[in-house]
Amino acid sequence: MSETLSATTSINETDWLEAVKWNQDGLVAAIAQDYQTDRILMMAWMNRESLALTSEKKEAVYFSRSRQSLWHKGESSGHTQIVHEIRLDCDADVIVLKVEQLGGIACHTGRESCFYRVLTEDSPQKQWQSVDDVIKNPDEIYGKTK
Amino acid sequence: MSETLSATTSINETDWLEAVKWNQDGLVAAIAQDYQTDRILMMAWMNRESLALTSEKKEAVYFSRSRQSLWHKGESSGHTQIVHEIRLDCDADVIVLKVEQLGGIACHTGRESCFYRVLTEDSPQKQWQSVDDVIKNPDEIYGKTK
Repeated sequence: MSETLSATTSINETDWLEAVKWNQDGLVAAIAQDYQTDRILMMAWMNRESLALTSEKKEAVYFSRSRQSLWHKGESSGHTQIVHEIRLDCDADVIVLKVEQLGGIACHTGRESCFYRVLTEDSPQKQWQSVDDVIKNPDEIYGKTK
Repeated sequence: MSETLSATTSINETDWLEAVKWNQDGLVAAIAQDYQTDRILMMAWMNRESLALTSEKKEAVYFSRSRQSLWHKGESSGHTQIVHEIRLDCDADVIVLKVEQLGGIACHTGRESCFYRVLTEDSPQKQWQSVDDVIKNPDEIYGKTK
């Protein structure tokens, strides 16, 4: 995938990318939100190339900090995010993507959203409680050998 | 404010705070979302103390990276965020707060949301276009001397 992606990044329209305030690692936080329900699905990071590609392809391309490489969301799972809108915040250091989440699953745990744990105050003490269903077993999404 | 806040942080319920994966600076990203409309209002950062206080007070308390101090949202503007729900993501390194935004203004520019700029593809080239109205002049919010 990287070769295909890299070949497409020779764009001239760079002003909008220069307006982004990249952090010391050259990254910006990117929040993906369902374009219809506005549910927050996930937060990941983008470098300059991944944001350019996201805008060009209209599909979310993040930058994996653990792998230090471009991460075209859905490349393994098929759960691509079709991008309907890209917003930038006042400090120019956070992006919001309004996306159509293919498969209805954004999280690697097989849930719609990565934010499936709620802080509850039930006794004896506060805890993070999983409140959302797993839609599809991750083994089925990624294959059992992974 | 800091004195008042610090005095309240001697909580024993620490397990839920230890479940959070704090970054190398001891921070976690926190996204605030309107509890009724689900509009994303802002993203900021929290340290352990600010998250504990947020949970305790049911008001958003962030950590200002520029000032390196606790930031009780609304302390200057009056635009406090009443917290209705706190969620944690699968990697335990991002928080979502469902908040009631007092004054209807989260952004220091006087807008409802910090994400008021949309990437447009109008000619001659892509640009970040402001699309949301200023509800209240920042001078009126913070005072002209600021």
